[in-house]
This record gives sequence, structure tokens and C-alpha cells, in this order.
Amino acid sequence: MKLATLKDGSRDGQLAVVARDLKTAHIADGIAPTLQAALDDWTFIAPQLEALYAELNAGRARRPFDFDPARCMAPLPRAYQWVDGSAYVNHVELVRRARGAEMPASFWEEPLMYQGGSDDFLGPHDDIVLAHEEWGIDFESEVAVVSGDLAMGAGPDEALRRIRLVMLANDVSLRNLIPPELAKGFGFLQSKPATAFSPVAVTPDELGDAWRDAKLHLRLRSTWNGRLVGQPHAGTDMVFNFAQLLAHLCKTRNARAGTIVGSGTVSNKDASQGYSCIAEQRSLEAIGSGEAVTGYMRFGDTIRIEMLDEAGKSIFGAIEQAVKRLEP
Amino acid sequence: MKLATLKDGSRDGQLAVVARDLKTAHIADGIAPTLQAALDDWTFIAPQLEALYAELNAGRARRPFDFDPARCMAPLPRAYQWVDGSAYVNHVELVRRARGAEMPASFWEEPLMYQGGSDDFLGPHDDIVLAHEEWGIDFESEVAVVSGDLAMGAGPDEALRRIRLVMLANDVSLRNLIPPELAKGFGFLQSKPATAFSPVAVTPDELGDAWRDAKLHLRLRSTWNGRLVGQPHAGTDMVFNFAQLLAHLCKTRNARAGTIVGSGTVSNKDASQGYSCIAEQRSLEAIGSGEAVTGYMRFGDTIRIEMLDEAGKSIFGAIEQAVKRLEP
Repeated sequence: MKLATLKDGSRDGQLAVVARDLKTAHIADGIAPTLQAALDDWTFIAPQLEALYAELNAGRARRPFDFDPARCMAPLPRAYQWVDGSAYVNHVELVRRARGAEMPASFWEEPLMYQGGSDDFLGPHDDIVLAHEEWGIDFESEVAVVSGDLAMGAGPDEALRRIRLVMLANDVSLRNLIPPELAKGFGFLQSKPATAFSPVAVTPDELGDAWRDAKLHLRLRSTWNGRLVGQPHAGTDMVFNFAQLLAHLCKTRNARAGTIVGSGTVSNKDASQGYSCIAEQRSLEAIGSGEAVTGYMRFGDTIRIEMLDEAGKSIFGAIEQAVKRLEP
Repeated sequence: MKLATLKDGSRDGQLAVVARDLKTAHIADGIAPTLQAALDDWTFIAPQLEALYAELNAGRARRPFDFDPARCMAPLPRAYQWVDGSAYVNHVELVRRARGAEMPASFWEEPLMYQGGSDDFLGPHDDIVLAHEEWGIDFESEVAVVSGDLAMGAGPDEALRRIRLVMLANDVSLRNLIPPELAKGFGFLQSKPATAFSPVAVTPDELGDAWRDAKLHLRLRSTWNGRLVGQPHAGTDMVFNFAQLLAHLCKTRNARAGTIVGSGTVSNKDASQGYSCIAEQRSLEAIGSGEAVTGYMRFGDTIRIEMLDEAGKSIFGAIEQAVKRLEP
């Protein structure tokens, strides 16, 4: 099924079921007030949402309305955990090579993940509001999953069974703040502003054969200022799958329902597939000619991130954001 | 006022008001079901909680009961954000010097903070359950604040006005996992297991003169296996106050209500005040004799963290935890 959270002025929005074709939706607050509430009690709530989803798709739901992605918040407008992996190690290697840094061989064997801020996510059409272009504003197109409860020490098999939802993410990054911040040794804080998510989150069964091996086997399309700049295959070159990322997270602690884990920037070794973040393109330029020529995003720039199924239909709806200057 | 969250089998527990002397408590779920709900609507909810607090202290509340810290969850059993600072730079410098690493001079001018996991906090009497002693289990005694909404770009003055609550934290750390994890460059993940918080969180006005300059000017007592090992003054040698830490966090994004910010391990330059984490003691030993002799925590060890007011009364109740082996 497909789920969305609609803006209603509250912090957590209103849970809605969205039709498979993304054309209509139906309020689901009679079943669960919020997506977090549904995740907190998933085995009880999910079948009721599935029943409403079936009715909506069959045209038998009582009060359907037109689905408008611009009215969406992130499926979880705020979450208790957001951890982002770097599962496409090709991306990590490229970016490091461009700045002359060695990548430890262990990066191919153990996931690299960071703990992100999760208290204030952006909806799919919300502006990316920032104070300075000079911070080096970049998008990062990613796949993300939402898990149920996982106990400390859970392995990949158990983690796979607890993946409740799949969605897309724009892990906005401030490239020029990253080197000094990472040099301090404690990871990202200011260099990772609010992350945006796709209009809908979908259950893995909705993805059919495209969901296998705890990976999503479809292309992720990034369109920057109206130009398609990347369509790498998310099932290719993903060195750690989502089950492995979740198991890595759970080694020393529990992960509770609603934990979001990102894939990291989707990146293929085949550079002809384009890029899912500007930093990667700049790295390729720097490695090739010695100079990165593509600039980061400017105020007014737009980014669209979308995934189509085999029939060419949008699965998650599109993340469609514009970069805006923070008005003091 | 003093607030606590009681275990009731739910994920977020039950909000209670606790008497100033920590002897009695009163359920507050008629006012707000959870502490997060109170923080979400603080200006409306807080006065109602204050009224109940006044009645409880005056012995006029309708259904008071004995307050039992062992029944407490963390005041926020799960939160949307937990960011920990290293405001006692003396601690950072000592630990680095012991391992022969230079500390950049900028650490005295710009806060060092990391994004922590916030989905699964421990209550004040909950066991610290971990799989291996070899991970190097350590406590870290800290002061923490809970903020209301802060907009991107908010400065220290505004941040100070948004500090809603103050509490104590045990930021449990796995010392032997830290060096390899930090070497990967993305900060802590596995090396920071679940954090514990004090039985009650208190509003700043409750602290009287001890709360000034956005710092808490009292000693933080750490008792390891029944022996007082540290009582450094939390108002001394805190290089960045809580308002500055919050402003640092908000530079590129909003911080939403319920954001928890930790002080980092409380540490005084005057080493006779003892230590708030074993790593610091080991650093002093290594610097002094070349060898760290104090071992990390073993299964069965206990840690008690508490702060007394000028009259010798416990303000927050005690964090009192035992380390236990994870049963497979």
C-alpha cells in the first residue's frame, strides 16, 4: 500500500492512504492518527490500512479526494531516528579520490553510516531554505526504508522482515561546511540541514520483483533545473543492502519503530548513468581534468527526484523542491 | 516544577508532576498525555502543570502517591533529537593528549557536538545491557537541557529563552569501539549505545541562582560501585553554555520542541574534583605514568549520578544503573 501524511497545521500531520496510481487519497485517521502511531502498532494497524487501500484502488472508498503531493509533509514529518548509510561505495570512493584522500579498504566490508537530525523533515514540495549559497548547497538522491522495532544484536534476516516502508529522500548537504566539520571528528551537524522525503511511502510488497535482496532494483531519476542529470540503477553497486545497514545500526542498541535508514547517494560505477548529487559530478571533473567546473545549487534552483516502475509510472510521487534564501 | 514519565507499558509512558522534595507525585495525563505533548504546546500546558505542582507541594493535590524513581522512564523515553556537546573542553583536551593527538585551537572557540540516537532512551534505573565487556563500557555524567522550537539562525539569547527543562544524563560510551568508528569520519554510531536520563526534568526557575549564564552551577556527583569518583562543578570550565550549544545546532536548520542538548562529560581543570567518566581518569593516568590502570566497567558494576542543591537535597533524583550482559 501507499501512505502519505497531509499538512493540517499540526506537527505530525494527518495519515492518508493513497491510491496505487497516486490520483486519489483517503484520510485514514479513523484507523491511526499519524504514521508513527501506525508504525507503533503495525501488525494491528497495517491490515486495516490495507483494507482501505484496496477499497480506494477499487473505487469503493467512501470519501476519496484528489491526491496533491504539494499538500504532503514527509511521510514521517518528524521521526525518532534517521540514520543514513553510504551503501554505494563507488560514490564514497569518487568523492575521496577527488580530494586526494585514501579510502580505507574496510569501507567495502563494513557500512559507513551517520546519525542524522530527524526532528524537522521537509515535505516533498517544501522549499530548501538556507542562508548562504556559499555553504555549497547540494542535493543527494537516495532510497530510504522505515523499520519496525529491532532488538540489539538483530541480524540482517530479522532486519529484513522488519522493513515496513520504502520511500525516496533528498539528503540535502552543505558541501563547503563538510570538510571543517568532519575534521573535528564527530560527524555531521551543521553540514546536514533538513532532509526531504517523497510524497508517499510504500510497503515492500507494492514494489513486486523490484524489491529483492533488501534492495530496490529500479532507476532513481534526478532532474536539476529541468535537466535529467542522473538515472543510476539503485539495485546496482549497492554494496550493503538495507537489511545489512539495519543490522549494523543494531549492533550495540535497539532500533525502535519508525527508524529511517537511508541508502546514501545512489551511484553506479558506470558514469554514463549520471549523478545523484553534484559533489559526485564535481569529483569526476576533478579526477578527469583537475578542475571541478559544475557549481553547487543557487537560490532559485530546482531539484526533482523520482522513481518510475517498469511501466513508467511514478511509484513514490516526486520530490520537487526549490532552493530559497532564508529571509531574516 | 519537576516532571517525570512513569512506566505504564506504553512507548511514551505517563506524564507525572513530582513534588519538589521528590517524595510524592501526581499523574498529569488529564493535562497532557506525555511530556512530548506538553513540550509541543508548552505555553498552554506548562501553566496547568505548574498549578498541579503547586497543589502537590502544598499537600492539596487530590491523588498523590509515593514517587518511585525505579518506576521512571527517561523524562522523554524517545525524542526527536538528541545532540551532545563537548562543552568541558578540558575533558576533550585530556583524552586527546593521552592518546598523543593534538587538539585544534578552534575547539576553544566553536562547540564540538554530535548527533546522537534518540529513539530508545533508558530510564534512570534501567540496566545498561550490552553484549561484551571488551567494548570498553564507560559512563559519562552530564547535564542536559530540553528546548522548545528554535528557528534556523536563532542566536544564544533566543535559545536561552527556549530552554524548557534541565536534567541529568548518562551518555554511555563504548570506548574501544570509538577509535575505529571515528576514524571512518562520520561520527559515532555503534560506539554510543542508549543514553539514560535522570528521574525528573526540572524547569530552570526551579534551580534558582544555580541556573545562570545558561549553565548549572552545582556539583555533579558520580559514584561508581559505591565509591564517589567525581564531583566536578558543572558551572566551572564549561566553555560553551547551553544557549551557545543550541545556537550552534540551529545555524543551518530549525530545532523542534523536545530537542535535547547535552553538555558533554562534566570536567574541571582541577583534577582533585575527580572524574565523570573513566576515560578521563585513564587519560590522567596515561599522561602521568604512561599507563592507564583503571579498567572500564564490568558486568555487575553500578553507576550513580546525582546533583544536590546547596541544602544537600537531590534535585533530579539519581541515575542508578547496573551493567548487565545481554542474554542471547
